[in-house]
Amino acid sequence: MSGVLDPAALDQLFREARTCQWFDGREVSDEQIATIWDLMKMAPTSMNQLPARIVWCKSAEAKERLAGHAAEGNKDKVRNAPVCAIIAMDTDFHEYLPEFFPPSPDAKAMFDGKEEMRRTQAFRNSSLQGGYFIMAARALGLDCGPMSGFDNAAVDADFFADTPSWKSNFICSVGYGDRSKVHPRLPRPDFARFNRLI
Amino acid sequence: MSGVLDPAALDQLFREARTCQWFDGREVSDEQIATIWDLMKMAPTSMNQLPARIVWCKSAEAKERLAGHAAEGNKDKVRNAPVCAIIAMDTDFHEYLPEFFPPSPDAKAMFDGKEEMRRTQAFRNSSLQGGYFIMAARALGLDCGPMSGFDNAAVDADFFADTPSWKSNFICSVGYGDRSKVHPRLPRPDFARFNRLI
Repeated sequence: MSGVLDPAALDQLFREARTCQWFDGREVSDEQIATIWDLMKMAPTSMNQLPARIVWCKSAEAKERLAGHAAEGNKDKVRNAPVCAIIAMDTDFHEYLPEFFPPSPDAKAMFDGKEEMRRTQAFRNSSLQGGYFIMAARALGLDCGPMSGFDNAAVDADFFADTPSWKSNFICSVGYGDRSKVHPRLPRPDFARFNRLI
Repeated sequence: MSGVLDPAALDQLFREARTCQWFDGREVSDEQIATIWDLMKMAPTSMNQLPARIVWCKSAEAKERLAGHAAEGNKDKVRNAPVCAIIAMDTDFHEYLPEFFPPSPDAKAMFDGKEEMRRTQAFRNSSLQGGYFIMAARALGLDCGPMSGFDNAAVDADFFADTPSWKSNFICSVGYGDRSKVHPRLPRPDFARFNRLI
């Protein structure tokens, strides 16, 4: 590793970045979308499970469809975003382990028939990948508006009828945020509050 | 936002970073540990829930205690790491919402008595924070070795007897990786494989 990133990069990724639910009108290109994936896919998941699946709603039709399943206060946020991603998990991720985790030929068999274990691991690892998604978007100069206020079952039925092992985790708008509409920063706890060093 | 981070930063965070389970002997300072928290805590969680709780096992005694609950293949990885963090979630995160989410005075009441909903949200959001943890450590020039091969119930009983609402999520070594012991990069899927753009 190369040392500490410069302060401006730490600001962009963490300290000055803000959740944005409203955007300034600039588009997000298909190339930027693909680059988010190409960065986030490199970060670690357990046994290289890579359970995240993403549907990027960019057309007005797709956003309207997604907005129909969002909580009342989130509908306009989905409609007005340049793109709103459904970050889902494949609970049948183990089918791909022979390809993605070649060091352990028995990896798939560990998960065969164990739906609850697969669901737990897919949820953990697709959420980790959700964190990488947000960091990758910020690294590209974009802002994110993650939301969990929507009807997961309705989204799954509408978007994943052909892939029933895909389950929505959360949704996330991406674009160039309108900083004039960002709320004041919410409080954050000091290290001593939620950490123990032993 | 400020534009795209320079290529070296993208390499350090995503493209050239590698999971490391073996380290080069350099220590991780208490200041570095606190800085990981001070970066990761700034990134978003739903309603500012901030459910992650972290126990940093840095002393030989603490690492030995944690190694005792790890899978056979992970015991020496825990023992030999400069520090190994238990990333946990507080399933009673809602008790803090009056402080951390002041815009919605009713936020706590939404979760009162709803243990399963709290567990789902704590798991999602503490895993997101796990992703931020790994990215923050990498941004500081450190390497991570995340692991889920350990006995969660035994770790909870041993480390969280005084805070029974804390549940372990995953564990993660942190240090300066020994690149000579890193395995070849595992495959990663192209955008078209697991993404849909509609």
